[in-house]
Amino acid sequence: MVLEQSHLYREIHEQPAVLRSLIERERPGIKRFASAIRARGVDYIVIAARGTSDNAGRYAQYLFGAMNEYMVALATPSLYSIYRKPPRFGNALVIGISQSGKSPDIVSVLAEARRQGAMTAAITNFPDSDLARQAEHVITLNAGEEKSIAATKTYTASLAAIALLSAELTGDEEMRQALGAIPEKVEGLLALSPQIGVLAERYRYMRDCVVLGRGFSYATAFEFALKMKELTYTIAEPYSSADFMHGPLALIEHGFPAFVVAPSGVLLPEMMQFVQTLRQREAEIVMISDDADAQALGRAAIPLPAGVPEWLSPLTAIVPCQLFAMHLAAVRDFDPDHPRGLRKVTETK
Amino acid sequence: MVLEQSHLYREIHEQPAVLRSLIERERPGIKRFASAIRARGVDYIVIAARGTSDNAGRYAQYLFGAMNEYMVALATPSLYSIYRKPPRFGNALVIGISQSGKSPDIVSVLAEARRQGAMTAAITNFPDSDLARQAEHVITLNAGEEKSIAATKTYTASLAAIALLSAELTGDEEMRQALGAIPEKVEGLLALSPQIGVLAERYRYMRDCVVLGRGFSYATAFEFALKMKELTYTIAEPYSSADFMHGPLALIEHGFPAFVVAPSGVLLPEMMQFVQTLRQREAEIVMISDDADAQALGRAAIPLPAGVPEWLSPLTAIVPCQLFAMHLAAVRDFDPDHPRGLRKVTETK
Repeated sequence: MVLEQSHLYREIHEQPAVLRSLIERERPGIKRFASAIRARGVDYIVIAARGTSDNAGRYAQYLFGAMNEYMVALATPSLYSIYRKPPRFGNALVIGISQSGKSPDIVSVLAEARRQGAMTAAITNFPDSDLARQAEHVITLNAGEEKSIAATKTYTASLAAIALLSAELTGDEEMRQALGAIPEKVEGLLALSPQIGVLAERYRYMRDCVVLGRGFSYATAFEFALKMKELTYTIAEPYSSADFMHGPLALIEHGFPAFVVAPSGVLLPEMMQFVQTLRQREAEIVMISDDADAQALGRAAIPLPAGVPEWLSPLTAIVPCQLFAMHLAAVRDFDPDHPRGLRKVTETK
Repeated sequence: MVLEQSHLYREIHEQPAVLRSLIERERPGIKRFASAIRARGVDYIVIAARGTSDNAGRYAQYLFGAMNEYMVALATPSLYSIYRKPPRFGNALVIGISQSGKSPDIVSVLAEARRQGAMTAAITNFPDSDLARQAEHVITLNAGEEKSIAATKTYTASLAAIALLSAELTGDEEMRQALGAIPEKVEGLLALSPQIGVLAERYRYMRDCVVLGRGFSYATAFEFALKMKELTYTIAEPYSSADFMHGPLALIEHGFPAFVVAPSGVLLPEMMQFVQTLRQREAEIVMISDDADAQALGRAAIPLPAGVPEWLSPLTAIVPCQLFAMHLAAVRDFDPDHPRGLRKVTETK
């Protein structure tokens, strides 16, 4: 199969257009939603999601915390759908994130939130889905149909929806403008595809690896690991670099591959110090960074664009990672559109 | 080294005594703490922890949710310690869990909670630690010194502290009695050690695996995976069975090892259906269960004791898993007390 003709390739490359469309079309609705949240004086936020959407939830946890002072809890759907012992939401805002809007466990969290009178919202590609029907406020991803089983454009669109909401909650014009500059940065990253294809060759026989990130990059570590699992069947385990020190560090031996998400920002010095620990243990390190000093710490590097503020870096950092996973699938002669054993819509109870 | 002379072996075997001591000595303090929580009318709970203690936090998330109707958020320490952009806790109860009470990032979450006037508590083995000093209420694990680097007795003691708090919050005498019966169940499990040692031989050359659990067993999946990583250097990735369906299922091929935590309870039928999916994909399945039908679904089984209610099953289910990880370390000639590259107290910023 010609890689360029795959749905995955096309959907990765549609991201600049999808992001532009989302930012333009959803801003008025998200602005109204932000006003409603402020008017209600929401105490904290609960997010219900699975898989790729759950990784978008991880981004929201840091972003709404750092920029909007909201505590964010990630819901435990089985308490609603199986145990039927739902916690009290109180004055929480409950957000469901799901590309399809169909997974019954996620829908059940929103249904219970609505029953309790909590404020509800859905972020989904399908504004007429079960999930959207349970929600008072709906943010539509406007991503067009996603045909590849591994989600790419709906992930970055979900991140953009979250970033837009955070910006509208602060009302900060600088945040709005920084977000507006992201689609062009993503466009620039797509040009790295051939170079990343060459790098992927080196990892033809990599059976397992860890993907490390912290703070804003925690979501990127999880999403990159998920793409590697889905597309290349690599046993890629994501970790916060801090959690990694509390035990899993024992895994590292000579040549063990560690992908480190390390964009410029407040956290970077901490990450660079952490990478020294990996170097002492002789890991094979791949640095995902825009910083030249950080890149130089790795055996290899996946470059990021300069000039992206840390809070928006997850929207750009994942793009070369998606390309890497796509190329690694091709290097291994796997079908990028149809990972074994998966379907596009996964409905879990 | 003679396994029976290791700290790890001794500490695993001290668990019945540690649990008895904790339940007896901490009940009065926890009872007062529960009254204070009710009097304050806490809106939700935030837990800050790392590594093994974070897995105890995962148990608390389900238990306080199912039994006490509290939403539980797991804190993101870097927002406090590195970004210095702490969210508002509002009327939350903020609990730090740490064996040593020393990790600066966890201490920083409690310090900020205190500064904001939120209710604070610490669960720790060191009542004079930095963490305990930041907390209004302290639950002491009473576990005695833990010399092995891999935590065992402080994990089950943390679970018992959480279970005791949940029981005192409900005031339900049946819950109290069920918890009181656990030390004897743990004692019974320790007799399985030789049998589990034989089983471990089969996994001498297992390089990687997944550990699957959901709901109350989610914590057990994470803690078992962590013990395998620390003690045996197996790349053991924990997953909720529901999350696993949303992508990572693609990893499963003939012979891929999957350990499934499946104690009796509300969730068991769901787990057994999930295991059929793993069987169709020809995984090597090890069932951790007290249910004969569930055990029969696996290529092998790690037995659990009958008569333990689902909400307490994490206190028993982890014990044969600790034994398995210990024996697998011995089978591979690794030092069970000194995993490579780790120290007992990990201080992360």
